[in-house]
Amino acid sequence: MAAVAPATRWRLLLLLLSSVGLGAVGAPQSPNIVLLLMDDMGWGDLGVYGEPSRETPNLDRMAAEGTLFPNFYSANPLCSPSRAALLTGRLPIRNGFYTTNAHARNAYTPQEIVGGIPRSEHLLPELLKEAGYISKIVGKWHLGHRPQFHPLKHGFDEWFGSPNCHFGPYDNRARPNIPVYRDWEMVGRFYEEFPINLKTGESNLTQIYLQEALDFIKRQQAQQHPFFLYWAIDATHAPVYASKAFLGTSQRGRYGDAVREIDDSVGKILDLLRGLSIGENTFVFFTSDNGAALISAPRQGGSNGPFLCGKQTTFEGGMREPAIAWWPGHIPAAQVSHQLGSIMDLFTTSLSLAGLEPPSDRTIDGLDLLPTLLQGRLVDRPIFYYRGNTLMAVTLGQYKAHFWTWTNSWEEFRQGVDFCPGQNVSGVTTHTQEEHTQLPLIFHLGRDPGERYPLSFASAEYLDALGRVTPVVRQHQEALVPGQPQLNVCNQAVMNWAPPGCDKLGKCLTPPESVPEKCSWPH
Amino acid sequence: MAAVAPATRWRLLLLLLSSVGLGAVGAPQSPNIVLLLMDDMGWGDLGVYGEPSRETPNLDRMAAEGTLFPNFYSANPLCSPSRAALLTGRLPIRNGFYTTNAHARNAYTPQEIVGGIPRSEHLLPELLKEAGYISKIVGKWHLGHRPQFHPLKHGFDEWFGSPNCHFGPYDNRARPNIPVYRDWEMVGRFYEEFPINLKTGESNLTQIYLQEALDFIKRQQAQQHPFFLYWAIDATHAPVYASKAFLGTSQRGRYGDAVREIDDSVGKILDLLRGLSIGENTFVFFTSDNGAALISAPRQGGSNGPFLCGKQTTFEGGMREPAIAWWPGHIPAAQVSHQLGSIMDLFTTSLSLAGLEPPSDRTIDGLDLLPTLLQGRLVDRPIFYYRGNTLMAVTLGQYKAHFWTWTNSWEEFRQGVDFCPGQNVSGVTTHTQEEHTQLPLIFHLGRDPGERYPLSFASAEYLDALGRVTPVVRQHQEALVPGQPQLNVCNQAVMNWAPPGCDKLGKCLTPPESVPEKCSWPH
Repeated sequence: MAAVAPATRWRLLLLLLSSVGLGAVGAPQSPNIVLLLMDDMGWGDLGVYGEPSRETPNLDRMAAEGTLFPNFYSANPLCSPSRAALLTGRLPIRNGFYTTNAHARNAYTPQEIVGGIPRSEHLLPELLKEAGYISKIVGKWHLGHRPQFHPLKHGFDEWFGSPNCHFGPYDNRARPNIPVYRDWEMVGRFYEEFPINLKTGESNLTQIYLQEALDFIKRQQAQQHPFFLYWAIDATHAPVYASKAFLGTSQRGRYGDAVREIDDSVGKILDLLRGLSIGENTFVFFTSDNGAALISAPRQGGSNGPFLCGKQTTFEGGMREPAIAWWPGHIPAAQVSHQLGSIMDLFTTSLSLAGLEPPSDRTIDGLDLLPTLLQGRLVDRPIFYYRGNTLMAVTLGQYKAHFWTWTNSWEEFRQGVDFCPGQNVSGVTTHTQEEHTQLPLIFHLGRDPGERYPLSFASAEYLDALGRVTPVVRQHQEALVPGQPQLNVCNQAVMNWAPPGCDKLGKCLTPPESVPEKCSWPH
Repeated sequence: MAAVAPATRWRLLLLLLSSVGLGAVGAPQSPNIVLLLMDDMGWGDLGVYGEPSRETPNLDRMAAEGTLFPNFYSANPLCSPSRAALLTGRLPIRNGFYTTNAHARNAYTPQEIVGGIPRSEHLLPELLKEAGYISKIVGKWHLGHRPQFHPLKHGFDEWFGSPNCHFGPYDNRARPNIPVYRDWEMVGRFYEEFPINLKTGESNLTQIYLQEALDFIKRQQAQQHPFFLYWAIDATHAPVYASKAFLGTSQRGRYGDAVREIDDSVGKILDLLRGLSIGENTFVFFTSDNGAALISAPRQGGSNGPFLCGKQTTFEGGMREPAIAWWPGHIPAAQVSHQLGSIMDLFTTSLSLAGLEPPSDRTIDGLDLLPTLLQGRLVDRPIFYYRGNTLMAVTLGQYKAHFWTWTNSWEEFRQGVDFCPGQNVSGVTTHTQEEHTQLPLIFHLGRDPGERYPLSFASAEYLDALGRVTPVVRQHQEALVPGQPQLNVCNQAVMNWAPPGCDKLGKCLTPPESVPEKCSWPH
């Protein structure tokens, strides 16, 4: 993980560039950083990734002007751990975003969760401060909603959005509606001041989030601040929504309407950067938090293209993500990089862009992608797939080894909860937890991206792949120091009853008695 | 089917263009036509269609310079009928390329087939002669190998290739090896003069086919003839092969090696057209004869992207094809057309390019795509999916109605013949022939390209879709005059024992006694 050299080199490069006049009048020393993080959007949802309706002209153009990663991964098949990994550069097993309540369970931050991002974790915006960045999060935080977890306590300077998913509407008695914050205080709740019409799918939230992004960019540009914008919007997470102008416009139904509005918004963000002449001084990265939620398909869920299963699983459909890097004048246009990339790389890469080193007192899983993006260099590195504290699989080069296979329980499956609709690979998409730690199932993802044909245990190729995977996994496991699990305890009393600012709005609700209990994570 | 107007208009346009000087020195009056027809290549095999390894830079560039069709269909999920449909502009049920030996069976032209393309059918090269075109077929003919079916008796002026698939090697006793022809006579046999190493996958056939194409183009250009090149190569049909320079170079294994060599060859063909300055006078279309053969995956079969099942089936994976139209200076660059297209359209479109009308004494199923390609016009038209003489399904707009579902028999399936590996949609991918003619299964292909979620029979959407599909199907069936079925009778005596020219090579074999029998088509 050669983070030191490229970061230093990059800073030198910047100094050189500005000395030869490329640094425009008052341009910040370090490039702005815009991370566009989608919610439950799948690898197969963009035209440039082969979605047949091809309704993402702006994202496709972004790819044509930048670098497309076909082998880019989330750090977890579920939202909160994935986002915690992005902002810390560390696997959820390290930063505490996992549960030990049962074996191999996905966990996240519903509003009854007690835990959240530990104070000991260094978040990206916190570190970017050292280089003078102003940071804003627009959209879903999802790293804990109790006061100590507030994003402005973890380095962000501004926030517009919600701490949890936009589920609801709730009755504000058994369960409060999710609040929407501006900075420190709530400014309303979903389904109240921020309506989402579940019947029609209409909501103008993406337009609001877009405006927040455009305003922030303009303000920072006017003040000549380097900025970090984390645009974590959620229109493609069920219940999916779109504003009136986009509803009914997609060939793909409501989910497609949401994608079209997002695509349009990304276009407007890039247009603004171009219009302000800061495109060449702004690094933009587009990706998603986990695979498409096939349980919500087809009307409320996206596409994972040719990959197996979706969100909640550690098959490729659950964790392989669309990913586009854009930085005109620096990242060459129309490139495809087969670097195995991780959402955690956005942490290290952003620090490198800012001329900073990642923290040296802890393990950082993210790589600096700049050598890949700027010089086409490829680094051999593993991708780890976890559920809870269980290492389910690892990918190294073209080989993916599954140590455990599981989709969900027979009980859930029989009730209609299906993470792999229409797909069934015997011995692979299992409904019981199957251990393969001694003799992992190994797939060659180049020949078999859909994980349908495990290599024969007797083949030379299997033995060779196993021989390469085994020491990498052993080294990972031996060195691993798991963080304190944050997602074990739930309590109805910690829900969003009375967020800061509720009094000004007359929106404070009375919490029930505090009863801590083990959270139940069924899959 | 407004074929008259565009064809006339096009001719006028050409006259106008040449009168203002765009017709270069001695340029032919009508554009050259190059049809690049792949064998068993799937929709998902090209980078531009989302194949994760993205190893088709030349085809991707062709798409960037032309029009990509995401909704383009074969006329049959199997090779011979599909090719007969391309060259006649007519459904196999009309041109005779089907069987009635059993219900809903795929049939083709193995070397024991007695039938072939009927004399009464007008093939594209035959018609193009009227406009002065010289035509060559390079590669697989597959419309019958007995003397009366020879391509040079059906309008082609030149042939280099084989009448049947490159299966083998055979012992030349029970079964002869397939001959390779140059024009009227054989010049050798596969696995003899034209080796394919089944163990290594090495064969230089694609290089030979490429050279044939380049030579033909140069010769016709030198003689100022408008030409039609039908480049029907077969490296992606099992047994897949590649030449030494490409073997082992793909991330996708041997199948990918074959694709890379084809991609490279397409690049060389387009480069030659550009180099000879006839790119703007040459219409090039790339497509495939049917979906990827998933029975041969992963080592010898391709990818159908997000679609259901593959070759042999009437699900999208069996019949939706990659399709790119290229004609610089005429077809605008980087377009995507959602016109429902058919391989049969290449017949009508080619005639239109040549300023010819399709035959008026018979039903032609192909549309003229020029209004779509040149003016972006969309035409509402059905796509029919047949197995044998059974109408299995129809697509109209976004709706696909299945009247019959079947993959293959339980017996075959239990023996390991699987057309939908890893896929299983309850009640859809059936192993018994299920009739739905009264109440078809209907899918919305925009929301559900993978055919996983049949519309509810009770929904208003279902009733509306059914109401639109029903009259179209009724009209089709009422007007249908099936051709004489050509694929019912087999006979060992008609195999390629003694093709013309065998005597000169000392390669004539003695046929066995003539015993006509019903061909057996298991699925």
